[in-house]
Amino acid sequence: MEDHLHGLDFLPRDPAERREAEGTEGLVEAMRYSLLAGGKRFRPVLALATCESLGHDPSRLLPTAAAIELIHTYSLIHDDLPAMDDDDLRRGKPTCHRAFGEDTAILAGDALFAEAMRLVCERQKGGPAVQVAVLRELSWATGVGGMVGGQFLDLRDAGHRSADALRLVHTLKTGRLIAASVHVALVLAAPPREIAERYRRFALELGVLFQIVDDILDVAGEEVMLGKAVGGDARLGKATYVSFHGLDRARELAAETHSRARALLDGLPGSHEDLLHLADHVYTRRH
Amino acid sequence: MEDHLHGLDFLPRDPAERREAEGTEGLVEAMRYSLLAGGKRFRPVLALATCESLGHDPSRLLPTAAAIELIHTYSLIHDDLPAMDDDDLRRGKPTCHRAFGEDTAILAGDALFAEAMRLVCERQKGGPAVQVAVLRELSWATGVGGMVGGQFLDLRDAGHRSADALRLVHTLKTGRLIAASVHVALVLAAPPREIAERYRRFALELGVLFQIVDDILDVAGEEVMLGKAVGGDARLGKATYVSFHGLDRARELAAETHSRARALLDGLPGSHEDLLHLADHVYTRRH
Repeated sequence: MEDHLHGLDFLPRDPAERREAEGTEGLVEAMRYSLLAGGKRFRPVLALATCESLGHDPSRLLPTAAAIELIHTYSLIHDDLPAMDDDDLRRGKPTCHRAFGEDTAILAGDALFAEAMRLVCERQKGGPAVQVAVLRELSWATGVGGMVGGQFLDLRDAGHRSADALRLVHTLKTGRLIAASVHVALVLAAPPREIAERYRRFALELGVLFQIVDDILDVAGEEVMLGKAVGGDARLGKATYVSFHGLDRARELAAETHSRARALLDGLPGSHEDLLHLADHVYTRRH
Repeated sequence: MEDHLHGLDFLPRDPAERREAEGTEGLVEAMRYSLLAGGKRFRPVLALATCESLGHDPSRLLPTAAAIELIHTYSLIHDDLPAMDDDDLRRGKPTCHRAFGEDTAILAGDALFAEAMRLVCERQKGGPAVQVAVLRELSWATGVGGMVGGQFLDLRDAGHRSADALRLVHTLKTGRLIAASVHVALVLAAPPREIAERYRRFALELGVLFQIVDDILDVAGEEVMLGKAVGGDARLGKATYVSFHGLDRARELAAETHSRARALLDGLPGSHEDLLHLADHVYTRRH
């Protein structure tokens, strides 16, 4: 995955168009700065592990997996902006706008999104029907009913007034793209409907688990491990699983969600080691 | 075109997902505010006129034409942001961030882009091969080698140091999406290669013409007609066709470009009235 991401230069392939775009190197530098700043690569790894679990060669899904990481990076850059969460640090380094200026950061996010779509159009194998289905998943997961809609809710007080409202924020803001990471593997592997449905429910549980553990780590983690200031959400007065349910109950919820996620893969054909390992990792991670 | 744009509510079609996204109405309001604020609809009209000129039913291209207008609107919202051009007025109304706040404006732009892609995936007819080819055109025209890369160059001094540098800014920033508006019609109609090439060259000339006339109107237009402060680019110290060549030479360049554009359609099979009319309108427009 890292090699694949490092190999992306985002310039057009046509030589004449490539020359014309060469002055944009400062933009590409900002995109690569944020994309290659480390991070768990959770979403692309989830996409590839789901592919493997479905008995398909995960390397065939690499362009789409990379596209999902581009989209995730774009969302982090925009979320960090002064007009949004106004964060100075991300993964232990200055955020994109602190390093390159606010204008470049906005454009780096915009360009990562466009280049993610182009990556699927130009490199994803499996034919146009697979490509369109993948692009539909990605655009659905990132639009009004997905990531961007969720960020909008997250910036509003109403998104934090009840445990249900909070769950909805997370479903849209992070759950949809996590779900899409599983869905794109289903597009490629095309398993029978009941099996696909199990994977979809697994993806939902995994998204919720991811968020509960994030909230727990936000109050209980170590600053140095997280690479951002601990207690950030609490400081902003944002509701979290912990603020609604308390730390102990949040930990119970994480354990229950983890069990439900694992159970959904039980009895399915194939080998799910990587996917189960990933669910365990989401549950037990310390940063 | 207007009816089609007015009909877009951007919410998911699945009833359960639709309910979950209902809290985002403030986001959708900001998107529709900017999308339905008027404007020339130049790019979608160009796409439909090209379709007609190629002997194809333009109504078949409506979802893609609308998607292009969504993308254009997203680019205007982000270009107007305080960190970019910092404009207060657009089409005679407060810009999106002045009306809804900077955070909502950034997200409205982001969401319009995602929803543009989703529109093509869900509504464009012609099969997946046509859809992917359209999405490739749109993602290429908006990425590093297109609109966003051009805006990056436009924000840098180097983009204004010579007439060639300036031409490159415009080629990327506005030319690519104007070209893509013609290309998407070529995707649907699939004419022979030499004919397609003529349309592509026509699109390039039209993009240049559009920009020269824009620069002329920026110094010679009337504020009330333009809906934005006249002389904005000059005030910001930005180079324009007029600042490099003078008003008279810029007018000559416009006339020459207009003639070349018209000549490219001469002798092609079919009726090009709408497309020629559009080229004339770009040349003679007063706002």
